Amino acid sequence: MRIWRATILLFVTLNVSCAQISFTVVPLGVKGGSDESNLSAYALTATGTHDYVCLDAGTLHAGIKKAIENKTWKGDATNFLRKNIKGYLISHPHFDHTNGLIINSPEDSAKYIYGIESCLTVLQEKHFSWKSWANFGNEGEQPTLNKYTYQILTSGKEAPLYNTSMFVTPFVLSHVAPNESTAFLIRHADNYILYLGDTGCDRLEQSDKLHQLWTAIAPLIQNKKLKAIFIEVSFANEQPDHLLFGHLTPALLMEELAALEKISGVGTLKNLNVMITHIKPFGNREAVIKKQLHERNTPGVTLIFPEQGKALKF
Amino acid sequence: MRIWRATILLFVTLNVSCAQISFTVVPLGVKGGSDESNLSAYALTATGTHDYVCLDAGTLHAGIKKAIENKTWKGDATNFLRKNIKGYLISHPHFDHTNGLIINSPEDSAKYIYGIESCLTVLQEKHFSWKSWANFGNEGEQPTLNKYTYQILTSGKEAPLYNTSMFVTPFVLSHVAPNESTAFLIRHADNYILYLGDTGCDRLEQSDKLHQLWTAIAPLIQNKKLKAIFIEVSFANEQPDHLLFGHLTPALLMEELAALEKISGVGTLKNLNVMITHIKPFGNREAVIKKQLHERNTPGVTLIFPEQGKALKF
Repeated sequence: MRIWRATILLFVTLNVSCAQISFTVVPLGVKGGSDESNLSAYALTATGTHDYVCLDAGTLHAGIKKAIENKTWKGDATNFLRKNIKGYLISHPHFDHTNGLIINSPEDSAKYIYGIESCLTVLQEKHFSWKSWANFGNEGEQPTLNKYTYQILTSGKEAPLYNTSMFVTPFVLSHVAPNESTAFLIRHADNYILYLGDTGCDRLEQSDKLHQLWTAIAPLIQNKKLKAIFIEVSFANEQPDHLLFGHLTPALLMEELAALEKISGVGTLKNLNVMITHIKPFGNREAVIKKQLHERNTPGVTLIFPEQGKALKF
Repeated sequence: MRIWRATILLFVTLNVSCAQISFTVVPLGVKGGSDESNLSAYALTATGTHDYVCLDAGTLHAGIKKAIENKTWKGDATNFLRKNIKGYLISHPHFDHTNGLIINSPEDSAKYIYGIESCLTVLQEKHFSWKSWANFGNEGEQPTLNKYTYQILTSGKEAPLYNTSMFVTPFVLSHVAPNESTAFLIRHADNYILYLGDTGCDRLEQSDKLHQLWTAIAPLIQNKKLKAIFIEVSFANEQPDHLLFGHLTPALLMEELAALEKISGVGTLKNLNVMITHIKPFGNREAVIKKQLHERNTPGVTLIFPEQGKALKF
């Protein structure tokens, strides 16, 4: 009788644990500027596997080094990069999201770079252009060194993330029109994580891109399938609208979360994990942003502030 | 009588000291790849002043932060950058020499970017191109934000480094022909420092660019006016010629120093400060390069291996 009880208990525990934790994220860089050693890059894997993709690639080597120092990972940074990072999802081609990819490319192994067409075109024209860096890609200026294979993603259409057990559906965002950025909805089995690249709010961008995204993900929130949203808050509320450069403040994030809640249903965002990315370092801005977010957290989301090299599980 | 003696002694001491130490260099980044937090950038000032220029700008913020941690400098990294770095000399437009400049540009103050025309053109077309980054320059794609003023340098012609007491004469180098790189000969009063960007040796580059440079600086060596040479050694001797990508090894550096000594005179390089830059991190390459350099140091130069954030005086 006792054995049966123990077995049932073990089964229930394992089952709950599997259902609860689907993704592991190791931030390789979390800041929205200035510090070259800590720029937007998030290594993501289906929990239990070691096949990561990088959501943006602002800092790679220095972030992996930090994760190794923190005992999150073991071994040598370059070897880890070569072996365990299977691909890069680039939200938009600004250098604070691509520097790590460029700098590490000579030592990197062959892998995939995923992005919408406008993003990959800029990578080919400006980044891996021979004049500014060797062309490690498989397209663009000749000769191509063919280390990286570009995978063009189509907005709203799911695609596999090769050599991992994850899939991605991209959604185009507005980052000072007509510049596009991208949100990546990552699926593992029946669980999801949403990562947004730099974005302004619909009202100021005069866009409906976030509205479209919220409409697409609302069912996942209702069904508790969405484990976390990574979204940027670059500036504090004091930043004037004309100096936002396509970014969010705490107030604008809450404006957008209210828009999302209007679609997903009142109360549905309660305890949803919302990870704040891309704070632009300046004076005490980080502390101010945290305070302003906590003060205005009407939907009751769980606010998370990532740290470089420290694993998070969702 | 004693007072006179003391005064004369003090005068002599000060005079000798002034003649001996002309430049202070604070390496902000010393590596030739991989680690985004420590890429080629050397802050240089005339000793006794705090008006620096940066020789290349691979890493700025993380290097200044390190210098502050080391108590080389005081205060806040962004403030230091804004106030004390008066200009950037870019040897060539590869991202490992420009990333710090790009990433820090939004918070930076107005200043000058110096380079030969081919280099500044690439900065305008690939780096500050709006598609990849806002155009903080005063030329290139419209609109120009005019924070940085480009100063085109002409090979062999001296130009002032504004807001400092230093002057620069550039010399074109070959970095996989037809790609150009640059050596910067910096003058303060009657003393000089020579910084070379990435370069191959004349023999393999099928070039005479280094020969021309050695001919130009030989008189300064003969007259003991040249305080130091900063030159790259990216790879160890084992690197095959066809995989050098326009870089030097210990053996190739010594080949070039022998060519220099042939012009400046046998024995003239003895104790000349030669600072080794741009080692590309990989396994134990750094230790191997150091050993190979010390083993082949026929001209008897003083080999210096810079460390991020630690001041050197010449």
